[in-house]
Amino acid sequence: MTSFPSAPESDLRIDIRRLLDRLAALAEIGAIEGTDGSSRLALTDEDKAGRDLVVGWMRDLDLDISIDGLGNVVGVMPGETTGPAVMCGSHIDTVHTGGRYDGNLGVLAGLEVIETLRTAGVTPHRPIAVGFFTDEEGARFQPDMLGSLVYVGGMALEQAHSITGIDGATVGDELERIGYIGAAPLPATAPVAFVELHIEQGPVLEAEGFDVGALTGVQGISWTEFTLTGQSNHAGTTPMSLRHDPGLVAFRAAAFVGDLAVELGHPQVGTVGRIELEPNLVNVVAASATFTVDLRNTDNGVLFDAERRVVDFIETTAADAGVIVSARELARFDPVEFDPDVVDRIERVAEAMGLSVKRMPSGAGHDAQMLSRICPTGMIFVPSQGGVSHNPAEHTNPTDLESGANVLLQVLTELAAK
Amino acid sequence: MTSFPSAPESDLRIDIRRLLDRLAALAEIGAIEGTDGSSRLALTDEDKAGRDLVVGWMRDLDLDISIDGLGNVVGVMPGETTGPAVMCGSHIDTVHTGGRYDGNLGVLAGLEVIETLRTAGVTPHRPIAVGFFTDEEGARFQPDMLGSLVYVGGMALEQAHSITGIDGATVGDELERIGYIGAAPLPATAPVAFVELHIEQGPVLEAEGFDVGALTGVQGISWTEFTLTGQSNHAGTTPMSLRHDPGLVAFRAAAFVGDLAVELGHPQVGTVGRIELEPNLVNVVAASATFTVDLRNTDNGVLFDAERRVVDFIETTAADAGVIVSARELARFDPVEFDPDVVDRIERVAEAMGLSVKRMPSGAGHDAQMLSRICPTGMIFVPSQGGVSHNPAEHTNPTDLESGANVLLQVLTELAAK
Repeated sequence: MTSFPSAPESDLRIDIRRLLDRLAALAEIGAIEGTDGSSRLALTDEDKAGRDLVVGWMRDLDLDISIDGLGNVVGVMPGETTGPAVMCGSHIDTVHTGGRYDGNLGVLAGLEVIETLRTAGVTPHRPIAVGFFTDEEGARFQPDMLGSLVYVGGMALEQAHSITGIDGATVGDELERIGYIGAAPLPATAPVAFVELHIEQGPVLEAEGFDVGALTGVQGISWTEFTLTGQSNHAGTTPMSLRHDPGLVAFRAAAFVGDLAVELGHPQVGTVGRIELEPNLVNVVAASATFTVDLRNTDNGVLFDAERRVVDFIETTAADAGVIVSARELARFDPVEFDPDVVDRIERVAEAMGLSVKRMPSGAGHDAQMLSRICPTGMIFVPSQGGVSHNPAEHTNPTDLESGANVLLQVLTELAAK
Repeated sequence: MTSFPSAPESDLRIDIRRLLDRLAALAEIGAIEGTDGSSRLALTDEDKAGRDLVVGWMRDLDLDISIDGLGNVVGVMPGETTGPAVMCGSHIDTVHTGGRYDGNLGVLAGLEVIETLRTAGVTPHRPIAVGFFTDEEGARFQPDMLGSLVYVGGMALEQAHSITGIDGATVGDELERIGYIGAAPLPATAPVAFVELHIEQGPVLEAEGFDVGALTGVQGISWTEFTLTGQSNHAGTTPMSLRHDPGLVAFRAAAFVGDLAVELGHPQVGTVGRIELEPNLVNVVAASATFTVDLRNTDNGVLFDAERRVVDFIETTAADAGVIVSARELARFDPVEFDPDVVDRIERVAEAMGLSVKRMPSGAGHDAQMLSRICPTGMIFVPSQGGVSHNPAEHTNPTDLESGANVLLQVLTELAAK
């Protein structure tokens, strides 16, 4: 646990009009016609245009801009002292059908915080930095959170450059093509602290009527793909007792995943979001069934238990049906815990502003979980209307955007104080 | 119940070599390289070539050949009397990846029966006919069993001609193109009786060690497509209690279909062979799930009960989950019962030959179920290795083919006797 100086509450407030204008201007790049959303897959022409726009705003604010070899961009507002900055940021790449707020909010709110301080003539004790990380979404290049992973030293730059995307291009070639390979050192110097403002991308804050979330960490994630192989048969002529039906085993397993998540209780979630039968015909008992299981929990012990119980259930059920199981791990991340001081500070600052705050884990991955490997880290969530995200219909009310950005302003100001 | 004269058992036996040669020659047309199977979708060039070959064999046997307006072809061996014939037959169209025996066996065994009688110098009291019906498989033009349906007056010729296939062509145009629109009257004159020899296309005879099946009828078939609409959400950020997951409802429903079929007991079968989630991604709670339910039983009351219980389960489960259900009937056929005299006769004849016989329903549809609307009808099944069908690997042992054809010979001879 890190200790930061306490600081008096500031009366400064961000300008929501300016923030909304920047969000709208960035959303124009790669705009999906007839919607509020955008499509700016990492390192495409659209991403380059988005980067150029945000870097232009950084220049307008007279920030010290550095770009590293993976295209992560950081703009620093100098403080009274040199040395490591208090940092905020997120990402500006999107999924194929992205919304206006996911990622962009954390970056543009960071710019807004700095502009607010500048306009008020405030010079922080420590530098304040705002960054955007390359390929957070992982929609073009796997894994997701690639930029922040390399930023904190979790993957070598050369390895990241060699990653091939869904369209056959490599990260290195595309970075070079769009002119975003810089010389800033990697891994980066650890910031003093990192705070990411992000939309929730889930329904909890809205459903429970909270203004703001103070993130306690990120859930551990377990993704497994199961392939079941049985015997394809005619659905009319094959008695139930003579079947080896991988589809039926998959259906039972998928129902079990739902039951198990409910039994284990919140925050355990379990989802079978993808399933494919072969040959997938109305009158044919399937030859094979492939499906994915997505399990998440903040408690790694419970998550391991859930994984084991799913595997046990599938193996037993498949054996009873004479069906063969194979499993492939698609992803496994341990839960991340954010810094208690930063979490408490976010909660206290928000409450002091009269906002209702929910302490909660994030169910989705974020750049902040990478930064938490090298510095005290926290996240601020604002509600997502209907929990909709990764969709042009993604929406957060201006009031909530304003609240979140003001919490960010105050938290960064405190962390950057003497 | 119709009564037929009994007849002394004949010592005549078919020539399995000749039958195998014809099966092999027909399989050469549209042959799937490296397999025993063929691809002769209805009214394609391959189907035309198959028809020409079989019609050529009918000519070689000096049969009176008639072709009706839907391309159903019947070859008649005259008897001592004129008037309606005792008829056998099946179809020679195949699914896209068809086997060598499905349909073809019933037609070519009919030719073999007639050639055996000819060679022995036997003239039956009544004429004996062998036919093949257009588009039994329904793989190019829906519905299946189209030719026999029109043959018995179940659909008007004009309506059948206007059916558009998967490739956009119509039945009428394709019949004209391949030169198989004839002038024989439709609906056809009812035969005295109809007997179809067919491979089982299921595993029961082989699994239980029977030589031959005496078919009691055809199971009733109920196909329904259910579409469930919920709310797509992030699989990590959406607690179980806030989900409206149509995938989970579909999985529970599909598992219930399996449980219900087992609970209702043989011959009830229930299959979910097709399912599709949207968007079908590992980390997204689906927006919608579409799946089919295939239910079959020989008892229409039980079948109705099964249908009702599936719908009740889905509606209750969906309502609990806040998911909307819509259902679409894809097919519904009442069970068919074959003529008791013909069924008994097949059983008796087979037993007299020293064969083990199982009385059983057919789980799949066959032309015989259409013919049963207009005349006493029965079917003979021979085992399918591994229950495999609609697949080039479809196989029946020559011994079993021979047994089936000899039962057909004796049953037709009896039915055609004075």
